[in-house]
Amino acid sequence: MALFITFEGIDGSGKSTQARLLAQSLRNDGTDVILTREPGGSPGAEDIRRLLVEGDPDRWSAETEILLFTAARRDHLEKTILPALAAGTTVISDRFADSTRVYQGATRGDLRGHVDRLHAEMIGQEPDLTFVVDMDPGLALRRGLARKSGEDRFEDFGTAFQVKLRAGFLDLAAQFHDRCCLIDGNRPIDTVASEVARRAKEALAQGSAP
Amino acid sequence: MALFITFEGIDGSGKSTQARLLAQSLRNDGTDVILTREPGGSPGAEDIRRLLVEGDPDRWSAETEILLFTAARRDHLEKTILPALAAGTTVISDRFADSTRVYQGATRGDLRGHVDRLHAEMIGQEPDLTFVVDMDPGLALRRGLARKSGEDRFEDFGTAFQVKLRAGFLDLAAQFHDRCCLIDGNRPIDTVASEVARRAKEALAQGSAP
Repeated sequence: MALFITFEGIDGSGKSTQARLLAQSLRNDGTDVILTREPGGSPGAEDIRRLLVEGDPDRWSAETEILLFTAARRDHLEKTILPALAAGTTVISDRFADSTRVYQGATRGDLRGHVDRLHAEMIGQEPDLTFVVDMDPGLALRRGLARKSGEDRFEDFGTAFQVKLRAGFLDLAAQFHDRCCLIDGNRPIDTVASEVARRAKEALAQGSAP
Repeated sequence: MALFITFEGIDGSGKSTQARLLAQSLRNDGTDVILTREPGGSPGAEDIRRLLVEGDPDRWSAETEILLFTAARRDHLEKTILPALAAGTTVISDRFADSTRVYQGATRGDLRGHVDRLHAEMIGQEPDLTFVVDMDPGLALRRGLARKSGEDRFEDFGTAFQVKLRAGFLDLAAQFHDRCCLIDGNRPIDTVASEVARRAKEALAQGSAP
Protein backbone atom coordinates (compact mmCIF):
# COMPACT_ATOMS: atom_id res chain seq x y z
CA MET A 1 0.00 0.00 0.00
CA ALA A 2 1.24 3.49 -0.88
CA LEU A 3 1.79 5.87 2.05
CA PHE A 4 2.00 9.64 2.41
CA ILE A 5 5.17 10.29 4.46
CA THR A 6 6.35 13.75 5.59
CA PHE A 7 9.51 15.15 7.20
CA GLU A 8 9.29 18.10 9.57
CA GLY A 9 11.77 20.06 11.68
CA ILE A 10 13.63 23.35 11.94
CA ASP A 11 15.79 24.74 9.11
CA GLY A 12 19.13 22.92 8.97
CA SER A 13 17.86 19.88 10.90
CA GLY A 14 18.83 17.54 8.06
CA LYS A 15 15.22 16.61 7.16
CA SER A 16 15.71 17.33 3.43
CA THR A 17 18.77 15.02 3.34
CA GLN A 18 16.84 12.35 5.24
CA ALA A 19 13.84 12.63 2.89
CA ARG A 20 16.17 12.09 -0.09
CA LEU A 21 17.96 9.14 1.55
CA LEU A 22 14.62 7.49 2.43
CA ALA A 23 13.40 7.86 -1.16
CA GLN A 24 16.60 6.16 -2.40
CA SER A 25 16.33 3.37 0.14
CA LEU A 26 12.68 2.62 -0.72
CA ARG A 27 13.41 2.72 -4.47
CA ASN A 28 16.26 0.25 -3.93
CA ASP A 29 13.62 -2.07 -2.48
CA GLY A 30 11.42 -1.63 -5.57
CA THR A 31 8.87 0.72 -4.02
CA ASP A 32 7.39 3.41 -6.32
CA VAL A 33 8.22 6.74 -4.66
CA ILE A 34 8.01 10.42 -5.51
CA LEU A 35 10.01 12.94 -3.49
CA THR A 36 8.42 16.37 -3.18
CA ARG A 37 8.60 19.44 -0.91
CA GLU A 38 6.73 22.40 0.53
CA PRO A 39 6.25 25.17 -0.12
CA GLY A 40 6.24 23.96 -3.71
CA GLY A 41 5.95 20.48 -5.18
CA SER A 42 3.91 21.46 -8.27
CA PRO A 43 4.58 24.16 -10.89
CA GLY A 44 2.02 26.58 -9.42
CA ALA A 45 3.09 25.96 -5.84
CA GLU A 46 6.74 26.57 -6.80
CA ASP A 47 5.66 29.98 -8.14
CA ILE A 48 4.01 30.73 -4.78
CA ARG A 49 7.16 29.44 -2.99
CA ARG A 50 9.24 32.25 -4.46
CA LEU A 51 6.89 34.82 -2.91
CA LEU A 52 7.24 33.13 0.49
CA VAL A 53 10.93 32.34 0.88
CA GLU A 54 12.54 35.36 -0.82
CA GLY A 55 12.59 38.98 0.32
CA ASP A 56 12.42 40.81 3.66
CA PRO A 57 11.27 39.02 6.83
CA ASP A 58 8.48 41.64 7.18
CA ARG A 59 7.30 41.21 3.59
CA TRP A 60 4.14 39.36 4.72
CA SER A 61 2.17 39.23 7.97
CA ALA A 62 1.76 35.81 9.56
CA GLU A 63 -1.92 35.86 8.49
CA THR A 64 -1.05 36.44 4.81
CA GLU A 65 1.62 33.73 5.06
CA ILE A 66 -0.98 31.21 6.27
CA LEU A 67 -3.12 31.96 3.20
CA LEU A 68 -0.20 31.70 0.77
CA PHE A 69 1.07 28.44 2.30
CA THR A 70 -2.46 27.02 2.18
CA ALA A 71 -2.86 28.07 -1.48
CA ALA A 72 0.46 26.39 -2.36
CA ARG A 73 -0.54 23.28 -0.38
CA ARG A 74 -3.90 23.02 -2.14
CA ASP A 75 -2.17 23.11 -5.55
CA HIS A 76 0.50 20.63 -4.40
CA LEU A 77 -2.20 18.28 -3.11
CA GLU A 78 -4.37 18.48 -6.27
CA LYS A 79 -1.61 18.29 -8.85
CA THR A 80 1.05 16.06 -7.22
CA ILE A 81 0.18 14.25 -3.97
CA LEU A 82 -3.35 12.91 -4.58
CA PRO A 83 -2.69 11.74 -8.18
CA ALA A 84 0.46 9.89 -7.01
CA LEU A 85 -1.31 8.16 -4.11
CA ALA A 86 -4.20 7.22 -6.42
CA ALA A 87 -1.66 5.58 -8.75
CA GLY A 88 -0.21 3.54 -5.88
CA THR A 89 2.95 5.66 -5.53
CA THR A 90 4.30 6.46 -2.05
CA VAL A 91 4.77 10.21 -1.55
CA ILE A 92 7.62 11.61 0.57
CA SER A 93 7.28 15.34 1.24
CA ASP A 94 9.90 17.62 2.81
CA ARG A 95 7.43 19.63 4.99
CA PHE A 96 3.61 19.72 4.87
CA ALA A 97 0.83 21.22 7.03
CA ASP A 98 2.70 20.66 10.31
CA SER A 99 5.19 23.37 9.30
CA THR A 100 2.36 25.90 9.02
CA ARG A 101 0.99 24.76 12.41
CA VAL A 102 4.39 25.45 14.01
CA TYR A 103 5.71 28.45 12.04
CA GLN A 104 2.56 30.56 11.70
CA GLY A 105 0.37 28.85 14.31
CA ALA A 106 2.76 29.00 17.26
CA THR A 107 5.94 30.92 16.48
CA ARG A 108 5.16 33.87 14.18
CA GLY A 109 1.92 34.61 16.03
CA ASP A 110 -0.74 33.02 18.18
CA LEU A 111 -2.69 31.96 15.11
CA ARG A 112 -3.16 28.23 15.54
CA GLY A 113 -6.95 28.67 15.40
CA HIS A 114 -6.73 30.31 11.96
CA VAL A 115 -4.30 27.61 10.76
CA ASP A 116 -6.52 24.75 11.93
CA ARG A 117 -9.75 26.17 10.48
CA LEU A 118 -8.12 26.91 7.10
CA HIS A 119 -6.66 23.41 7.00
CA ALA A 120 -10.05 21.86 7.78
CA GLU A 121 -11.75 24.06 5.15
CA MET A 122 -9.36 23.76 2.21
CA ILE A 123 -6.91 20.86 2.77
CA GLY A 124 -8.18 18.10 5.07
CA GLN A 125 -5.45 15.61 4.15
CA GLU A 126 -3.01 14.38 6.85
CA PRO A 127 0.13 12.27 6.31
CA ASP A 128 0.15 8.57 7.25
CA LEU A 129 3.59 8.93 8.85
CA THR A 130 5.58 12.04 9.87
CA PHE A 131 9.25 12.07 10.86
CA VAL A 132 9.92 15.02 13.17
CA VAL A 133 13.71 15.50 13.02
CA ASP A 134 14.82 17.17 16.26
CA MET A 135 18.11 19.06 16.44
CA ASP A 136 19.99 21.60 18.56
CA PRO A 137 18.98 25.00 17.06
CA GLY A 138 22.51 26.43 17.32
CA LEU A 139 23.95 23.63 15.20
CA ALA A 140 21.01 23.72 12.78
CA LEU A 141 21.32 27.48 12.27
CA ARG A 142 25.08 27.21 11.55
CA ARG A 143 24.28 24.52 8.96
CA GLY A 144 21.54 26.68 7.43
CA LEU A 145 23.68 29.80 7.24
CA ALA A 146 26.54 27.83 5.68
CA ARG A 147 24.44 27.08 2.59
CA LYS A 148 23.04 30.61 1.88
CA SER A 149 20.55 29.93 -0.87
CA GLY A 150 18.72 33.24 -1.39
CA GLU A 151 15.74 31.47 0.24
CA ASP A 152 16.61 32.79 3.67
CA ARG A 153 13.55 34.77 4.67
CA PHE A 154 12.65 32.47 7.60
CA GLU A 155 16.27 31.94 8.72
CA ASP A 156 16.50 35.75 8.92
CA PHE A 157 14.05 35.75 11.85
CA GLY A 158 17.09 34.72 14.01
CA THR A 159 18.18 32.21 16.67
CA ALA A 160 15.46 32.90 19.26
CA PHE A 161 12.94 32.11 16.51
CA GLN A 162 14.63 28.74 15.82
CA VAL A 163 14.53 27.89 19.57
CA LYS A 164 10.76 28.56 19.59
CA LEU A 165 10.34 26.52 16.42
CA ARG A 166 12.10 23.52 17.97
CA ALA A 167 9.75 23.65 20.97
CA GLY A 168 6.81 23.93 18.57
CA PHE A 169 7.83 20.80 16.67
CA LEU A 170 8.31 18.84 19.93
CA ASP A 171 4.79 19.87 21.03
CA LEU A 172 3.45 18.84 17.63
CA ALA A 173 5.07 15.38 17.80
CA ALA A 174 3.35 14.89 21.16
CA GLN A 175 -0.02 16.17 19.93
CA PHE A 176 -0.06 13.93 16.82
CA HIS A 177 1.77 10.98 18.43
CA ASP A 178 -0.31 8.47 16.44
CA ARG A 179 1.38 9.43 13.17
CA CYS A 180 4.55 11.27 14.34
CA CYS A 181 7.90 9.61 14.87
CA LEU A 182 10.40 11.81 16.76
CA ILE A 183 13.95 11.35 15.44
CA ASP A 184 17.18 12.55 17.15
CA GLY A 185 18.88 14.42 14.29
CA ASN A 186 22.04 15.25 16.28
CA ARG A 187 23.49 11.80 15.41
CA PRO A 188 25.51 10.91 12.27
CA ILE A 189 23.50 11.09 9.05
CA ASP A 190 23.78 7.35 8.33
CA THR A 191 22.58 6.42 11.82
CA VAL A 192 19.54 8.67 11.43
CA ALA A 193 18.88 7.34 7.91
CA SER A 194 18.94 3.72 9.12
CA GLU A 195 16.37 4.40 11.82
CA VAL A 196 14.13 6.34 9.43
CA ALA A 197 14.30 3.59 6.77
CA ARG A 198 13.54 0.86 9.30
CA ARG A 199 10.48 2.66 10.64
CA ALA A 200 9.19 3.63 7.18
CA LYS A 201 9.50 0.04 5.95
CA GLU A 202 7.62 -1.25 9.00
CA ALA A 203 4.83 1.23 8.24
CA LEU A 204 4.72 0.28 4.56
CA ALA A 205 4.58 -3.41 5.48
CA GLN A 206 1.65 -2.71 7.81
CA GLY A 207 0.03 -0.22 5.41
CA SER A 208 -0.33 2.33 8.19
CA ALA A 209 1.44 4.51 10.74
CA PRO A 210 3.87 2.91 13.27
CA MET B 1 -16.17 60.86 7.31
CA ALA B 2 -13.99 58.64 5.13
CA LEU B 3 -15.76 55.81 3.33
CA PHE B 4 -14.64 52.52 1.79
CA ILE B 5 -16.22 52.45 -1.71
CA THR B 6 -15.91 49.55 -4.17
CA PHE B 7 -16.79 48.98 -7.83
CA GLU B 8 -17.87 45.56 -9.04
CA GLY B 9 -19.00 44.08 -12.36
CA ILE B 10 -17.94 41.88 -15.24
CA ASP B 11 -14.75 42.49 -17.25
CA GLY B 12 -15.24 45.37 -19.68
CA SER B 13 -18.23 46.83 -17.78
CA GLY B 14 -16.49 50.19 -17.40
CA LYS B 15 -16.09 49.92 -13.62
CA SER B 16 -12.34 50.80 -13.70
CA THR B 17 -13.10 53.97 -15.71
CA GLN B 18 -15.92 54.85 -13.33
CA ALA B 19 -13.70 54.29 -10.28
CA ARG B 20 -11.12 56.68 -11.74
CA LEU B 21 -13.73 59.31 -12.64
CA LEU B 22 -15.23 59.16 -9.14
CA ALA B 23 -11.80 59.61 -7.55
CA GLN B 24 -11.25 62.72 -9.73
CA SER B 25 -14.67 64.13 -8.92
CA LEU B 26 -14.23 63.68 -5.16
CA ARG B 27 -10.72 65.18 -5.25
CA ASN B 28 -12.11 68.20 -7.12
CA ASP B 29 -14.41 68.68 -4.11
CA GLY B 30 -11.43 68.56 -1.72
CA THR B 31 -12.00 65.00 -0.43
CA ASP B 32 -8.87 62.93 0.39
CA VAL B 33 -9.11 59.82 -1.80
CA ILE B 34 -6.91 56.89 -2.75
CA LEU B 35 -7.76 54.79 -5.80
CA THR B 36 -6.78 51.13 -5.56
CA ARG B 37 -7.69 47.80 -7.13
CA GLU B 38 -7.93 44.03 -6.67
CA PRO B 39 -6.28 41.71 -7.07
CA GLY B 40 -3.40 43.99 -6.05
CA GLY B 41 -3.39 47.37 -4.36
CA SER B 42 -0.21 46.82 -2.30
CA PRO B 43 3.26 45.68 -3.43
CA GLY B 44 2.79 42.11 -2.13
CA ALA B 45 -0.74 41.80 -3.50
CA GLU B 46 0.45 43.01 -6.92
CA ASP B 47 2.99 40.14 -6.88
CA ILE B 48 0.13 37.70 -6.16
CA ARG B 49 -1.96 39.37 -8.91
CA ARG B 50 0.53 38.30 -11.57
CA LEU B 51 0.02 34.65 -10.55
CA LEU B 52 -3.76 35.05 -10.85
CA VAL B 53 -4.34 37.01 -14.05
CA GLU B 54 -1.58 35.64 -16.29
CA GLY B 55 -1.24 32.14 -17.79
CA ASP B 56 -3.62 29.36 -18.81
CA PRO B 57 -7.27 29.35 -17.65
CA ASP B 58 -6.64 25.93 -16.03
CA ARG B 59 -3.52 27.08 -14.20
CA TRP B 60 -5.34 27.08 -10.82
CA SER B 61 -8.43 25.31 -9.51
CA ALA B 62 -11.23 27.54 -8.20
CA GLU B 63 -10.28 26.45 -4.64
CA THR B 64 -6.65 27.56 -5.05
CA GLU B 65 -7.85 30.82 -6.59
CA ILE B 66 -9.99 31.56 -3.54
CA LEU B 67 -6.93 31.16 -1.32
CA LEU B 68 -4.71 33.35 -3.53
CA PHE B 69 -7.35 36.09 -3.83
CA THR B 70 -7.86 36.00 -0.05
CA ALA B 71 -4.07 36.22 0.54
CA ALA B 72 -3.83 39.22 -1.80
CA ARG B 73 -6.88 40.82 -0.12
CA ARG B 74 -5.42 40.37 3.37
CA ASP B 75 -2.20 42.15 2.29
CA HIS B 76 -4.17 44.90 0.50
CA LEU B 77 -6.33 45.43 3.60
CA GLU B 78 -3.37 45.52 6.05
CA LYS B 79 -1.01 47.63 3.98
CA THR B 80 -3.31 49.99 2.03
CA ILE B 81 -7.03 50.08 2.93
CA LEU B 82 -7.06 50.11 6.74
CA PRO B 83 -4.16 52.61 7.12
CA ALA B 84 -5.89 54.99 4.67
CA LEU B 85 -9.28 54.78 6.42
CA ALA B 86 -7.56 55.30 9.80
CA ALA B 87 -5.97 58.49 8.39
CA GLY B 88 -9.40 59.78 7.28
CA THR B 89 -8.84 59.05 3.57
CA THR B 90 -11.70 57.67 1.48
CA VAL B 91 -10.72 54.45 -0.33
CA ILE B 92 -12.08 53.61 -3.79
CA SER B 93 -11.27 50.05 -4.87
CA ASP B 94 -11.80 48.55 -8.33
CA ARG B 95 -13.08 45.14 -7.10
CA PHE B 96 -13.02 43.63 -3.58
CA ALA B 97 -14.50 40.54 -1.87
CA ASP B 98 -17.71 40.60 -3.95
CA SER B 99 -15.68 39.58 -7.01
CA THR B 100 -14.51 36.43 -5.22
CA ARG B 101 -18.10 35.71 -4.12
CA VAL B 102 -19.23 35.84 -7.76
CA TYR B 103 -16.23 34.47 -9.71
CA GLN B 104 -15.19 31.58 -7.46
CA GLY B 105 -18.30 31.32 -5.27
CA ALA B 106 -20.92 31.07 -8.02
CA THR B 107 -19.39 30.91 -11.49
CA ARG B 108 -16.16 28.88 -11.42
CA GLY B 109 -17.67 26.36 -8.99
CA ASP B 110 -20.32 25.98 -6.32
CA LEU B 111 -17.92 27.22 -3.66
CA ARG B 112 -19.74 30.08 -1.99
CA GLY B 113 -19.52 28.32 1.39
CA HIS B 114 -15.71 28.18 1.17
CA VAL B 115 -15.59 31.83 0.06
CA ASP B 116 -17.81 33.04 2.90
CA ARG B 117 -15.99 31.09 5.62
CA LEU B 118 -12.55 32.24 4.42
CA HIS B 119 -13.79 35.83 4.29
CA ALA B 120 -15.15 35.61 7.85
CA GLU B 121 -11.92 33.97 9.07
CA MET B 122 -9.26 36.16 7.45
CA ILE B 123 -10.85 39.39 6.10
CA GLY B 124 -14.05 40.47 7.85
CA GLN B 125 -14.10 43.97 6.32
CA GLU B 126 -17.02 45.01 4.07
CA PRO B 127 -17.28 48.20 1.97
CA ASP B 128 -19.55 51.06 3.07
CA LEU B 129 -20.82 51.49 -0.50
CA THR B 130 -20.55 49.24 -3.57
CA PHE B 131 -21.36 50.26 -7.14
CA VAL B 132 -22.36 47.18 -9.15
CA VAL B 133 -21.96 48.25 -12.80
CA ASP B 134 -24.29 46.13 -14.93
CA MET B 135 -23.64 45.68 -18.66
CA ASP B 136 -24.58 43.50 -21.62
CA PRO B 137 -21.92 40.72 -21.59
CA GLY B 138 -21.52 40.74 -25.40
CA LEU B 139 -20.62 44.42 -25.42
CA ALA B 140 -18.42 44.06 -22.33
CA LEU B 141 -16.50 41.13 -23.81
CA ARG B 142 -15.84 43.04 -27.07
CA ARG B 143 -14.51 45.94 -24.99
CA GLY B 144 -12.32 43.59 -22.95
CA LEU B 145 -10.91 41.80 -25.97
CA ALA B 146 -10.17 45.12 -27.68
CA ARG B 147 -7.66 46.07 -24.98
CA LYS B 148 -5.66 42.77 -24.80
CA SER B 149 -3.44 43.36 -21.81
CA GLY B 150 -1.74 40.01 -21.19
CA GLU B 151 -3.98 39.81 -18.09
CA ASP B 152 -6.63 37.82 -19.91
CA ARG B 153 -6.86 34.61 -17.91
CA PHE B 154 -10.47 35.21 -16.78
CA GLU B 155 -11.63 36.67 -20.13
CA ASP B 156 -10.35 33.42 -21.69
CA PHE B 157 -13.10 31.47 -19.93
CA GLY B 158 -15.42 32.75 -22.72
CA THR B 159 -18.82 34.39 -23.28
CA ALA B 160 -21.00 31.87 -21.43
CA PHE B 161 -18.82 32.54 -18.39
CA GLN B 162 -19.44 36.31 -18.68
CA VAL B 163 -23.21 35.69 -18.88
CA LYS B 164 -23.08 33.67 -15.64
CA LEU B 165 -20.93 36.37 -14.03
CA ARG B 166 -23.47 39.05 -14.86
CA ALA B 167 -26.25 37.01 -13.24
CA GLY B 168 -24.00 36.49 -10.21
CA PHE B 169 -23.40 40.23 -9.79
CA LEU B 170 -27.15 40.96 -10.08
CA ASP B 171 -27.85 38.36 -7.36
CA LEU B 172 -25.14 39.90 -5.21
CA ALA B 173 -26.58 43.42 -5.55
CA ALA B 174 -29.92 42.03 -4.33
CA GLN B 175 -28.35 40.08 -1.47
CA PHE B 176 -26.36 43.06 -0.14
CA HIS B 177 -28.92 45.73 -1.06
CA ASP B 178 -28.09 47.79 2.02
CA ARG B 179 -24.66 48.74 0.67
CA CYS B 180 -24.97 47.96 -3.07
CA CYS B 181 -26.04 50.46 -5.70
CA LEU B 182 -26.88 48.87 -9.08
CA ILE B 183 -25.77 51.07 -12.00
CA ASP B 184 -26.80 50.68 -15.66
CA GLY B 185 -23.41 50.70 -17.40
CA ASN B 186 -24.88 50.53 -20.94
CA ARG B 187 -25.38 54.33 -20.93
CA PRO B 188 -22.78 56.94 -22.00
CA ILE B 189 -19.76 57.15 -19.67
CA ASP B 190 -20.54 60.72 -18.52
CA THR B 191 -24.15 59.83 -17.66
CA VAL B 192 -22.98 56.89 -15.56
CA ALA B 193 -20.25 59.00 -13.92
CA SER B 194 -22.75 61.70 -12.92
CA GLU B 195 -25.06 59.21 -11.23
CA VAL B 196 -22.13 57.52 -9.43
CA ALA B 197 -20.72 60.85 -8.21
CA ARG B 198 -24.13 62.05 -6.98
CA ARG B 199 -24.74 58.86 -5.00
CA ALA B 200 -21.19 58.76 -3.57
CA LYS B 201 -21.43 62.38 -2.41
CA GLU B 202 -24.77 61.71 -0.73
CA ALA B 203 -23.19 58.79 1.12
CA LEU B 204 -20.15 60.85 2.14
CA ALA B 205 -22.41 63.63 3.40
CA GLN B 206 -24.36 61.12 5.49
CA GLY B 207 -21.23 59.20 6.52
CA SER B 208 -22.80 55.92 5.48
CA ALA B 209 -24.23 53.83 2.67
CA PRO B 210 -27.14 55.24 0.59
